[in-house]
Amino acid sequence: MNVRHVISRLGLLFIVFSGVMILVAAIFFILDLLQQHEAGREAQQALLFSGLIGVAIGLACWALNRKVKSYIGRREALLLVALSWLIGAVLGALPFFLWAQISEVPASTQFAQFIDCYFEAMSGLTTTGATILSDIESIPRSLLFWRAITHWLGGLGIVVLFVAVLPSLGVGGKKMFQVEATGLSPGGLQPQIKETARILAGIYVGLTAIEVTALTVAGMSFYDALCHTFATIASGGFSTKNASLGYYRDKPAIDAIVIVFMILAGVNFALYHQLIKGKTKRVFKDTELRFYLFLIAAATALVYFSLRHDGAPLILTTGETVEAGPGETLRQSLFTSVALKTGTGFCTTDYNPWPFLAHAVIIFLMFTGGCSGSTTGGIKVIRVWIAFKIMIAEIEHAFRPNVIRPVKVGGNTIDHETKLGIVVFVLGILILFALGSVVIMLLEGANPTSDCDYKTAATASLATLCTIGPGMAKVGAMENYGWFSGSSKAVMCILMMLGRLEIFAIIVLFTPRFWRGD
Amino acid sequence: MNVRHVISRLGLLFIVFSGVMILVAAIFFILDLLQQHEAGREAQQALLFSGLIGVAIGLACWALNRKVKSYIGRREALLLVALSWLIGAVLGALPFFLWAQISEVPASTQFAQFIDCYFEAMSGLTTTGATILSDIESIPRSLLFWRAITHWLGGLGIVVLFVAVLPSLGVGGKKMFQVEATGLSPGGLQPQIKETARILAGIYVGLTAIEVTALTVAGMSFYDALCHTFATIASGGFSTKNASLGYYRDKPAIDAIVIVFMILAGVNFALYHQLIKGKTKRVFKDTELRFYLFLIAAATALVYFSLRHDGAPLILTTGETVEAGPGETLRQSLFTSVALKTGTGFCTTDYNPWPFLAHAVIIFLMFTGGCSGSTTGGIKVIRVWIAFKIMIAEIEHAFRPNVIRPVKVGGNTIDHETKLGIVVFVLGILILFALGSVVIMLLEGANPTSDCDYKTAATASLATLCTIGPGMAKVGAMENYGWFSGSSKAVMCILMMLGRLEIFAIIVLFTPRFWRGD
Repeated sequence: MNVRHVISRLGLLFIVFSGVMILVAAIFFILDLLQQHEAGREAQQALLFSGLIGVAIGLACWALNRKVKSYIGRREALLLVALSWLIGAVLGALPFFLWAQISEVPASTQFAQFIDCYFEAMSGLTTTGATILSDIESIPRSLLFWRAITHWLGGLGIVVLFVAVLPSLGVGGKKMFQVEATGLSPGGLQPQIKETARILAGIYVGLTAIEVTALTVAGMSFYDALCHTFATIASGGFSTKNASLGYYRDKPAIDAIVIVFMILAGVNFALYHQLIKGKTKRVFKDTELRFYLFLIAAATALVYFSLRHDGAPLILTTGETVEAGPGETLRQSLFTSVALKTGTGFCTTDYNPWPFLAHAVIIFLMFTGGCSGSTTGGIKVIRVWIAFKIMIAEIEHAFRPNVIRPVKVGGNTIDHETKLGIVVFVLGILILFALGSVVIMLLEGANPTSDCDYKTAATASLATLCTIGPGMAKVGAMENYGWFSGSSKAVMCILMMLGRLEIFAIIVLFTPRFWRGD
Repeated sequence: MNVRHVISRLGLLFIVFSGVMILVAAIFFILDLLQQHEAGREAQQALLFSGLIGVAIGLACWALNRKVKSYIGRREALLLVALSWLIGAVLGALPFFLWAQISEVPASTQFAQFIDCYFEAMSGLTTTGATILSDIESIPRSLLFWRAITHWLGGLGIVVLFVAVLPSLGVGGKKMFQVEATGLSPGGLQPQIKETARILAGIYVGLTAIEVTALTVAGMSFYDALCHTFATIASGGFSTKNASLGYYRDKPAIDAIVIVFMILAGVNFALYHQLIKGKTKRVFKDTELRFYLFLIAAATALVYFSLRHDGAPLILTTGETVEAGPGETLRQSLFTSVALKTGTGFCTTDYNPWPFLAHAVIIFLMFTGGCSGSTTGGIKVIRVWIAFKIMIAEIEHAFRPNVIRPVKVGGNTIDHETKLGIVVFVLGILILFALGSVVIMLLEGANPTSDCDYKTAATASLATLCTIGPGMAKVGAMENYGWFSGSSKAVMCILMMLGRLEIFAIIVLFTPRFWRGD
């Protein structure tokens, strides 16, 4: 294991990451100078100091190890990925924490505990969007901007990682982490991987630019448009408003734009690459894309039916109550289904009082997530599809053990190893979800001031593991994660990483064989 | 598909089954004559009529089809198994239903609906032990005896089926339903299968005889000893007392005997065969047996710790409240853990108010169940063990895709097909559990008089799917299933069959390919 080279790469990453922090500090410093606005000075200082600390650490990591053999094998890549998020969130949390130390604004107490800052940064980098903040709007805008940027950078990292660097799904003959049987070549990523990464980043930036423009045209301020776009494209969910997207209720065009871009962010980014290459037909025949769109449509229809049948008025995130007429119900059903399926977790309505059927559909959406190679979390649509086909094949197997019918997706036969890998992954998510709920319940049970019921614990586990953001009950659309004990928050940080990096990148770190040379 | 031959076999089975009914009627008729007891006459009539109807149907099924080609292939065997339980429960329900029609005893209204009688009979034959009865003790003893016998016959059927006829687990190179690649030989079961079946039945009867003797010596009446033994050996759980085993609280030896025999009933019956053949060493080295005993010990320790830490007094099923001292807590922890792990579901204490950790442990036990080839339900210990090993292997696979480390159990390498089959089974149980809970919630939600919360629906789904009996909340140790709507009860009957026959025997019936000749 070439740990020193991993550290040197990590150093480079941290320099870039902290550089962005300094840039944000500088931009808002200049903006405030121009607008003669002084209230945000402390936040900018916090960002600047954090950035400098990050750059210093990054430089040290790089400089002390830059002369080691530059070999990155599979284990080194996994370690690099895991540490990027694990330590990246420490750096990402610094601005929040430093600000709370130097500021006397009452709102800064929300960031007084480091675990809260770490949770917020991890939630950002894993594109989860779960927040510990109860009052978002009183946080300085430079910090909220940084918070939105953690989404965007995390999402970009995930897309590049899972589409270009670590072919993610085992579909089409390639396995997770299996692009390079002998390790990445010395000197860095192979040229074609770099090229793919560059194209993906271009698509990511392009989608971002289009959404920002659309939101600005629809009436959002440029600042809010940027923050919400970062959260949409990364399927994160951090908003700059306490009412989340519900704040823009009187501008339905904004809801529509966000719905479209949430759906787009949940699509495999490799498909956009195909689109650019002109392979339109292949894109629209994509099994995962079709099933993904079908699931959104079916879920919306079921939620709509459930709400209409129930007939209770809808409670918006602004606190307003509205009649559940057909148009209003459709709007809320579609927005909520898309927001939770893609794991964005923007909210326009409080779905806590919704009837059971709507809840069951929502929970299913949260588990399944979006497409592979997207910024969404969860099991992923393609795995759900393949697991379903495997189960059908197994049923036939019971009365015809000698007939082995191949499981195919888009014309490709899924091999045995991949089939097992996919079913184990689905089972793994379910087990981690259950374990997470139980551990959160036990930790909160040990805390006499906490009043955590099982629905809260279970959906908190689900919403962090599948990188959704909001859950139900006391972590519902209008609630936050600030009230959990520090140890529960730490558990949720682990769940977010496990879900975001598709379990294995984290779990391998705990196996002795990973660290042994054999 | 040779449906007519299946029907003829079914006919023979029904003749035996209904013959037992007539026998029970006769025995209790004579007993009542001797004891000059007249209250039970109507129940005996109900049993007699039901038995006669059953014999008539059985004879018709057999006589009309006895001349068809006597070929039983894999599909025929699956159909026979599924119909045995599905229609067997109709016959088994008849005595309850007829009694309710002719009796004017107030308690008979508990059986006024046929779905309730069917539920009770299905719960008996699948060795679940979930009851719709709120007042057991006012049911005539001949009917309670018949109810206990459904357990015993169902359990015997399962052991013979899964150990002798359909090698159940895919462990050791053999697959579920795969003993005969070309179908069972014409003219009936092959000689060695018949021989194994005979030995298994002998072991089953032997264990029954020993437990009856032990319980009688410990102070139970012979009648109660028989009924409770039938329920123990089949890991069913029907009791003749409203307080279940809690009734015998002042005779701790009875608790101890029942605990021992519940554990014995959860062991693979093939191991007893090995024991008889003198292969003691092999038995005690059995991976599943060791893991099974370890899980019981570990679960008891956790439940004990949880209860002692909580310190709340224990509520017995008799209604009494006792201090949670070390001895008392150990007794209740052990009894409850064993009763729920083996899916027997006898109760001595109400575990509804127990703390969360104890509940989490209990739920885990309910899912995992006992050993393969036993009368218990659930996932089965060996599958849990293998699934765990597969997951460990998959984790290593993430950083070493070219190293395929074989997954071994007791020296045997598990092949690819079997691995996939086991993981799919575990996933299937989890999915059916979730589906069952959602459907029950929706059905009860549609019923305005029902007040079914999610914990009740979920544990009812679990307790029927894994053939446990009691669940939690409103289906807890001191509750019953009588209050559910008829449609929910029908769903639970399906869950019991699915769990009891390890899913595939039922699900295949719904696939078109099963019925087509190809």
